[in-house]
Amino acid sequence: MSNWNPQNSDPVTRGLMSGFPPARDKTIRPEGGELGGNSFPNTRWAFSHQRELKPTATVRRGPAAPSALPHKLRDDIDAVAFTTMEGEQTTWGASIEALYTDGIVILHRGSIVYETYRGALSADLPHIAFSVTKSFVGLIAATLAHEGVIDTAAPVARYLPELAKSAFADATVRQVMDMTTGVKYSENYTDPLAEVRTYGIAAGYSKPPEGYTGPDSIASFLATLPKQGEHGAGFTYKTCNTEVLAWLIQRVTGKPMPQLISERIWQKLGMEEDGYLHVDPVGMAACGGGLNLSLRDLARFGEMMRNRGQYNGQQIVPATVVDDIAGGARKEDFAKAGYATMPGWSYRSQWWVSHDDLNAYTARGIHGQVCWIAPKAEVVIARFASHPVAANGNSILDKVSLPAYAAVAKHLMR
Amino acid sequence: MSNWNPQNSDPVTRGLMSGFPPARDKTIRPEGGELGGNSFPNTRWAFSHQRELKPTATVRRGPAAPSALPHKLRDDIDAVAFTTMEGEQTTWGASIEALYTDGIVILHRGSIVYETYRGALSADLPHIAFSVTKSFVGLIAATLAHEGVIDTAAPVARYLPELAKSAFADATVRQVMDMTTGVKYSENYTDPLAEVRTYGIAAGYSKPPEGYTGPDSIASFLATLPKQGEHGAGFTYKTCNTEVLAWLIQRVTGKPMPQLISERIWQKLGMEEDGYLHVDPVGMAACGGGLNLSLRDLARFGEMMRNRGQYNGQQIVPATVVDDIAGGARKEDFAKAGYATMPGWSYRSQWWVSHDDLNAYTARGIHGQVCWIAPKAEVVIARFASHPVAANGNSILDKVSLPAYAAVAKHLMR
Repeated sequence: MSNWNPQNSDPVTRGLMSGFPPARDKTIRPEGGELGGNSFPNTRWAFSHQRELKPTATVRRGPAAPSALPHKLRDDIDAVAFTTMEGEQTTWGASIEALYTDGIVILHRGSIVYETYRGALSADLPHIAFSVTKSFVGLIAATLAHEGVIDTAAPVARYLPELAKSAFADATVRQVMDMTTGVKYSENYTDPLAEVRTYGIAAGYSKPPEGYTGPDSIASFLATLPKQGEHGAGFTYKTCNTEVLAWLIQRVTGKPMPQLISERIWQKLGMEEDGYLHVDPVGMAACGGGLNLSLRDLARFGEMMRNRGQYNGQQIVPATVVDDIAGGARKEDFAKAGYATMPGWSYRSQWWVSHDDLNAYTARGIHGQVCWIAPKAEVVIARFASHPVAANGNSILDKVSLPAYAAVAKHLMR
Repeated sequence: MSNWNPQNSDPVTRGLMSGFPPARDKTIRPEGGELGGNSFPNTRWAFSHQRELKPTATVRRGPAAPSALPHKLRDDIDAVAFTTMEGEQTTWGASIEALYTDGIVILHRGSIVYETYRGALSADLPHIAFSVTKSFVGLIAATLAHEGVIDTAAPVARYLPELAKSAFADATVRQVMDMTTGVKYSENYTDPLAEVRTYGIAAGYSKPPEGYTGPDSIASFLATLPKQGEHGAGFTYKTCNTEVLAWLIQRVTGKPMPQLISERIWQKLGMEEDGYLHVDPVGMAACGGGLNLSLRDLARFGEMMRNRGQYNGQQIVPATVVDDIAGGARKEDFAKAGYATMPGWSYRSQWWVSHDDLNAYTARGIHGQVCWIAPKAEVVIARFASHPVAANGNSILDKVSLPAYAAVAKHLMR
């Protein structure tokens, strides 16, 4: 990606997928290779058009008109100045361009004060949220625990006997929710031998290599994962935990995840667009990162969390469930993961909790997806991006965007 | 399919795709083979879940609440008796079961008087409409001609120079619309050498066989079709005509078909669910048969046609455009195609016109999809099915369903 920058990688400028049919060298394909939708800079188009490349299942919004989301746009946001974690002076406006942003919505006290779409994204298009998906799953799991439908102290194998020989057999549901399981699974996208690669194939994100005989579904992949270390020893970010949690929820409720998210979140929030989930080769939703939704709908979700579960005139999830998430988990557990950009944070029920002066907590996904909630500032920031670098954590993304969010929130508090 | 019947092929009874994950032998796969979604009886599930098996593009309904579709259910429909074209006495209720019906909505004077869903279908699920898709494309083409955007007397190559060496070079737009072109293309699904097979691969419906080097997109396939016979010599049903028409419309308007259908039909009619179109390997919509929509939304579309383009408080297409379709074309042209079940019919702008005593005309798709409009009876019948036999025309489907529709309409007229 050496010669690419945010400007020359813009999919509209490049003419990707324009014309009938698009030119051969401008046609994004589902498969890998130079024109594959999984490779940067093709991702700049593909992240807003996942359903045109692969099988998906609807997260239905239902027949009602969407809930109100008033615009009170402000023109003073782009000029907000801040210092990055590397000491660079910049502004909000400059930073969103530099971070390959596809769209940002900022809510202040429930109104849209800032909204922008770039490149392939528009207000009506669902964009892949990647691991922001996990926070939807975690919220539903926490709600089901509150309802007594699942017991977070129970071992996973009580609900999923298929995992009795895997690492998860004796992990508790809570350990899976908080990602403190001991399981051999590397999330390192730059390591070709990392388990996340096999996960990608099993989940149907990547084409299997010639002669592949490994697992061909998320469930069968999870059953292969052996234990490594001890459960409860500390936080390590492993997507397999979310897939276990999602499978467990579906098993217990007897409902597929697209339906659960529709019934418990989409229809109640009054979402503006249907969302959708990527499905694996046997039709189960990929819940570790497969949700696609519109930016305004992600903002609605964040606003509901900011209001302790209230939105659209109703209590959508119990306030105590939101409080438990916003309150975070043990910082010592989180510290062991060594995220330089997130000192003093914790991870609770698939959410990242800052414990900072804004009480901010966030749903986060690779390549720059975020739903950032700052209760003390009455601010929610929903953002989609197609940054060439996958990782958050210690990356350039966090070093710029975390100070940027805080600066804008504090500016709006004034 | 010798041992299958409407009862034992029911996908719910068979447990297809139930459980998390579904059992191996109950899991429908996108590919061919015993568990392939293209083969009966798997189609009984797959026709209601196309997006979970393949890439698709949204036909967006927009943010508004759906238009009203009042229920005035009647309980006297199932008992309506009629005689099939083969002389058998039966009833409406018995016939819909025998025809592998997935769902039927009957409108009388704009209200739902009958509504049923069976097997894998429910009110909120889009079902594949197959060639009913063509009638949406034909209506938009006729409207664009009315607006002066396309000239139906012009040769196709004026709009699509890529087809200058194909059969379509000197065919007029009208000949394509009415399927009176002379082109070497067999629609015979039971002939392994029929061009419809290559179309299926090029459109991304079927997996290419090992070593396939033929066209890999709908557009590139159309360019390969040579002339056979003369243009204007008579009607022959060939899906390639619709794909040419759809390509031409997209080229002229600069808009992809999913957007055109959304803007001109879905949003204006106040549809209840997003629809979607199957897309080919280069992302262009398959317009000969790739539309999926809910049954009520298909009924809304039919009701708009019955009301000469008026629906939801507005004129959605010009009345003269609807009148031209409902008036049909030359019966002599149609007769040459030799459909025993449709004597005296004609084909106009991608619609089948009966010229019968109800002035009925219809959109039709293989395996039993229909939107049947009987202006004189003020009746619209929308139906989805997963009959094992593809063909309409001379098949058992028409021999039962055409008399059934007429009997119910006449019953409602009383």
